[in-house]
Parts: sequence; structure tokens; C-alpha cells
Amino acid sequence: MDSVVTMPNLSVDGDRLWQSLMETACFGGTPKGGIKRLTLTEEDRAVRDWLVRQCEALGCRTDIDEVGNMFFTRPGTEPTLEPIAIGSHLDTQPTGGKFDGILGVLAGLEILRCLDASGYETRHPLMLVNWTNEEGSRFSPAMLGSGVHAGVFDRAYADARQATDGTSFGDALDAIGYRGKAQAGSIRMAAMLELHIEQGPVLERRGKDIGIVEGVQSMRWYDLVITGVEAHAGSTPMDARLDALVMAAEIVLLVERIARSHASSMGTVGCLEVHPNSRNVIPGQISMTVDLRHPEDDELDAMEATLRQKIHACFDERLTCSLTEIWRSPAVKFDVSCIDAVASGAAAAGYSSLRLHSGAGHDSAYIARVAPTAMIFIPCRDGLSHNEAESSTREQCQAGAQTLLNAVLRLDTHL
Amino acid sequence: MDSVVTMPNLSVDGDRLWQSLMETACFGGTPKGGIKRLTLTEEDRAVRDWLVRQCEALGCRTDIDEVGNMFFTRPGTEPTLEPIAIGSHLDTQPTGGKFDGILGVLAGLEILRCLDASGYETRHPLMLVNWTNEEGSRFSPAMLGSGVHAGVFDRAYADARQATDGTSFGDALDAIGYRGKAQAGSIRMAAMLELHIEQGPVLERRGKDIGIVEGVQSMRWYDLVITGVEAHAGSTPMDARLDALVMAAEIVLLVERIARSHASSMGTVGCLEVHPNSRNVIPGQISMTVDLRHPEDDELDAMEATLRQKIHACFDERLTCSLTEIWRSPAVKFDVSCIDAVASGAAAAGYSSLRLHSGAGHDSAYIARVAPTAMIFIPCRDGLSHNEAESSTREQCQAGAQTLLNAVLRLDTHL
Repeated sequence: MDSVVTMPNLSVDGDRLWQSLMETACFGGTPKGGIKRLTLTEEDRAVRDWLVRQCEALGCRTDIDEVGNMFFTRPGTEPTLEPIAIGSHLDTQPTGGKFDGILGVLAGLEILRCLDASGYETRHPLMLVNWTNEEGSRFSPAMLGSGVHAGVFDRAYADARQATDGTSFGDALDAIGYRGKAQAGSIRMAAMLELHIEQGPVLERRGKDIGIVEGVQSMRWYDLVITGVEAHAGSTPMDARLDALVMAAEIVLLVERIARSHASSMGTVGCLEVHPNSRNVIPGQISMTVDLRHPEDDELDAMEATLRQKIHACFDERLTCSLTEIWRSPAVKFDVSCIDAVASGAAAAGYSSLRLHSGAGHDSAYIARVAPTAMIFIPCRDGLSHNEAESSTREQCQAGAQTLLNAVLRLDTHL
Repeated sequence: MDSVVTMPNLSVDGDRLWQSLMETACFGGTPKGGIKRLTLTEEDRAVRDWLVRQCEALGCRTDIDEVGNMFFTRPGTEPTLEPIAIGSHLDTQPTGGKFDGILGVLAGLEILRCLDASGYETRHPLMLVNWTNEEGSRFSPAMLGSGVHAGVFDRAYADARQATDGTSFGDALDAIGYRGKAQAGSIRMAAMLELHIEQGPVLERRGKDIGIVEGVQSMRWYDLVITGVEAHAGSTPMDARLDALVMAAEIVLLVERIARSHASSMGTVGCLEVHPNSRNVIPGQISMTVDLRHPEDDELDAMEATLRQKIHACFDERLTCSLTEIWRSPAVKFDVSCIDAVASGAAAAGYSSLRLHSGAGHDSAYIARVAPTAMIFIPCRDGLSHNEAESSTREQCQAGAQTLLNAVLRLDTHL
């Protein structure tokens, strides 16, 4: 903590940050107090235009890359250093809230304003980023802009993504005028920090102000099909049944047990469909999903092995179960220096904190492949997100932005 | 068994019965070898016309009641005795088989033919019955014609039943010309015997020729709604979840345990629907059904009490479960003399037999309210029914018809 004493004593303006959140919430604002601002729509154009005006008023340089990612740079005192990036995304789900992603961008703007107002000069350039199409709800997959920046997807792949109405990502990007000249991935950064709402209940339940995010969980998705024999519910004795739903119920509880027996892990059956789904017919077939997550890949390997072994033991050639992995995302480990900067930043401001892993995907999960990265979480009410009722308080937002500012200043000193 | 020696030695003609089954299977026959002969359609009219011709050729009197139930009477030697009725139904499911119901009517016809050929005279009149709309698939509810006969429903209720295309039962009945003059329920019977395929696997599995049906199970249907809290599958720790599907899985297994712990009982969850049914969202609400059956009402009371008590113990104000009984059908006990007649009839012909309860509803369940009644089951392949692949062999059908004839002759002597 020795370095804290060398830090300048700068404070973000919580009211100004809140004012920005409420002002931009009008671009796509819904009657229920949420935001519908799908990526590359007119609403997205409007909020992008607004952000350009704010950043250029502060003297920042604007760069847009070829997939619409936006970079606003405030110069540092040492021109040879790469910028420290801060930001997130301004697009939302169809019934999204006012904080998911947006807080990370507007807290970055607040930091630019704060530095501007104080006249403080950083060593590194400071760069505010707005990533294109984090949500993936208009154009799948999610985290497309940051994914192209990190080399996970190429530009042609991004351009070809289609909305359900047939519009392509490329055409939509051209239509709102945000196809930039910078080659995707060409804009370098010394580090990236992203502030985000937790989208879960842990900080609120534990009464902590700040989540120090050490990485993103390893995740795997499976499809299961259980096949028994459809039969009359009134004339098939219990010992003559091959009831697919009874076996599916065993698997739902097995997933629950596996998740509870591995600390920090999660296991969910989110979809389950019964065939023929008739009141007096013993179910003949079940389709269901399993979602397993753990911060460590090898622990997730062990969970999957238990699942496969128990399934193998429960079924035979008459009552069958097929399990297919349809997607996996390995664990992401954030950069230790960036994590330490966040921890010090929270401590310096006197905030209580908790180290945790993100259960959801974020732009930072891809950026971590090409730059030292970490994230900061703040609590959100009842853990709600992707919901118009999504809510964090003015004070929580301010705490997140202050921690972000402190972390940036520490990185600026140490990198 | 003393009475067996006094019985005439009459044998049904298995080939002639099989020929009738195959001949009538053409009225609504499907390419897959099943029958689509919904009640009160042109196909139903055709098979009814055919039956009238066969019975009148044997000298039987035809009576039709006001809901289209058909009664063909062969006189007995003692005019003051009420008729012994035999029969079932000729209507089918949309993808029905060649045996469900039809066997009971055509075995009755075979008995009339057998008696006619031998010149044997019974003491009681013998009456073949074809009940209208047993299946209930065009006009709900099922067993409508026998229900009106037994006073469970009135004629106006029956007439007003509507098909999905808006046609009423009354209009459809008039359209095919089978609105008879006899007042529903006015035609009396000394007893009723119904031969039917088992629609379950028990006889086949136990290697028995004949099922001596002692009654129809008590049945109850319930709707359940389980409400938890929808949340993100990646950011909601296991101990912070109110997962409605996990609780639903516990109930599926509870129903299974309850049914297995009461001999002769059955318990089935046939429908289960998940909301929102999204791969990475913890299910917030489940709608499901429970079907409980037992031959004895008081045993079913005990099963229901266990279900309610365990549900009460598993849920609280945060994770709720509502259980609503939506239908119940009390246990039906068939007449002891009729059951004994069936048992003696099977034994006299040297058939192996098993006493059991029907798990499905049948016309006899209603007729038992107004006349001494019993049923005879024969095996059907793999227990399949309500299915175009429904199948019993020529020999199995003959065994059922012979048992029915023997039972009728015994009742004729004893009643």
C-alpha cells in the first residue's frame, strides 16, 4: 500500500456520473425505465454521437475501427507509452437496463472529465473504449467487437452476421456511419480495466462495495436427450415403465449435487422439454440442457467426468441418454498487476471488497488475450440484470468509478 | 366349477371373428394399418350400417336411443327376463388401432352368430350394444353414450358437446341418421359384459391369456405450479438460488416413490413445462401434472396425503408450490357374480388368467352404476393402444370371445 500515498487525491463526481447515466438512458429509453438500444440501430448511433461530442469537448482524439469499436484518447506525458484503456459497451438487450455495460463507458468518461477538470496529466495516454455489439442479441455471437479486436473473429465474419430480419452487421454498421478506418486490432493498449455491474447477488448479499474480478469462469454447455418408452399412465405398472422424465429428474438433481460438491462451481438445467407432454402418457423422450461453470478448467473437467460417469451408470440400452457438448469457453485469468491495482484502488478509497470470478462473459474476457486486463464489479439490486428493473445506486456507481480511477492512476505509475 | 358341466359345448369361430375385424377395419382404415373412425362421422355411419345389416340378418331387433347408442336383441326363452348385454364401441382415436372397443362389439356379434348357427336358445334375451363416442376425441368427454345411458350426463349436455370445427354432437348425430327414438337409459339390462384389449403390458408380460377385470382404478389428476426466482445461471451461486426445476425434479421422484411404495398403484408426471426455458437462466417457474391411480379410493387418499405433506414440507414462502386437483374418478367395483362368470368362463375353456383392475376408463365403468357388470381383457402386443400399431393375435381374440360366450351362458343360467 506504499504507493497509495504517492497517488494524487482525485475524486470522481458521483452526481455528474449519475447525470450522464440518466441522460444517455433516453436513447432507447423504455416506459418501464429500461433501455432498448440494440447494437448498430438509430438509438445506438444517437448514443455514439453523444459520446463523440463529450469526448471531443475534452480534447480527446477519436478513432473508430472497421467494426465500429470507438477509442477516445487523452494524451499522456510520455508519448512512447501505450494507452491505458477503460470502457465497456453502450448497446443493450431488447429489454435491458440502464447499467449493464453503460456504467463502464460512462465511468470512463467521468474519469476523463475528472482529469480534465483537475488538469492532472497521466504518464500513459488514457483511452476510453466503447466496444461494438457486446450483447449479441441483434447479431450473434456476443462480444463481437472486442472479439474482432482480440483476433478471435475476423472482420469478414463480423460483417456477415445476420439479424433475424436479414440485415447484416456490415450493412447496419455502414448505415449508422460508424465504419471506421482503423484496422481492427491495430490500436494497442498497455492495459484494460472494465467496470461493470455484477449481474449476480454475491456482493449485495455479502454487503461488499467492490468486486475485484480475478477472471472469468470456465463454462461448458451440453445437450442431453433421454429416450425411454411412451406408455399409458393408467395401465403400465411401475415396474414395467421406462419413464424418461423420472431419469431426467435424477439428472437435474445430479447436476445440482455435482455443483454443490465443488466449491465455487455452478450447475444449471435451464431447458427441459417433455415428449409427448400429455397428462396420462408416460414421457417417452426428454430434451434438456446442462450448463456447468467453475473458475478452474481442471475442476470443470472433474465435474464433467462425474456427470458422464453417473449417466453411464444410470442408463442401459433400453433407457438411453446421449450427452453432447455444444460449447465451451475456457477459464480466463486476469492480469495480476491489474487485479492488484483494482484491489489497491478500492482499499485506498476505503471500500469493502471481495475477490470473485465473473460468471458471465464480458469484453474483457477477449481483451485479456491481447493486453493485461482486469474488471471491477459493483452490486446490483437482487442480482438482476438483462432486465428493465436492473438497478444500482448513485453511491454504488460512484464507488465503482472511484475505484476505477484509483486503479488507473496506480497502473499509470507502475506500468 | 360344478356348473361348467351343465354348459352347452359351444365354440366361437375364431376365423369368422377375425374376418369381421378385418372387414370393418376398412371403414376409416389408414395406410399404416390402423383406423381413423371418429364418432358420428361418415366412417362411423358406414360401420353402424354394416352392423345393422349383420344383426338383422340374424333376426335381431334393432333399437337406437336418442344419443345413438345401438342395441340388437336376440330373444330368449323367458320373455320376462331382462337382457344380458355384451358389447363395447366402434369409434376410434384419430390414429387408432383395429381392436380397441371394436373387438368387444364384434366378439358380441360372433356370439350372436354362434348361437344362431347352433340354434341354442338362452333364457334371457341377449343384447349386443355399440356405445356412442367412447373415445371422446371428437367430442369431449369420453364415454359419453354410456354415460348418458347411466344417467351420468343428460341428453342436452351430450347434444351440446362441440368438436373443434364447431360441429355439435347433436347435429353430427342427426347428420348420420342415428338419432334413435328410445329414451336414453330406458333400455334395461340384467347384466353387461365387455371384452376389451388390455391397453397395458401386464397379461403379455405374465404370459396370461385372459384378464378377469375386477374393477376400474380410482384416478385423480392434479396441476402443480412451482414458483422460484429466475436468475442468471453464471452469476448466481448455488446457495443463493431458488431453482423451480430442482424442486420439480424432487416432486417427479416423490411421485415415483409414492407409487412404488403402495402396491398396485401408479403415479405419473406426464406434462412438465419450464419457464423461461433458456439454457443459461435458472428456471423461475414450472407447470406440471400429476396422475395418481389405485384400485382402492382409501389407498389413493393416503397417497394424496403423502404427496401434500411432502410438498408442504419442501416449500416455503420464497419457493412455492400450488397443487390443485382438477379431476377425480372414484374406484369402480365390478359385480361379483359377473366377475365369477368371467373366471369360470376362462377356466372352462382352459385359458390361463389373472385378476386385475383396469387402469383406463371404459363404458363398463359407467354401466356398472346401473347394472351388474364385468370386463374381460386380452393381451395386446407391447401393451400398445391408441396407436395404429395396436395388435392382438387371431388366437388371443378368439380366446377373449370364447371366454365371453362362456361367461354369458353361465350368467344366463345363474341370473
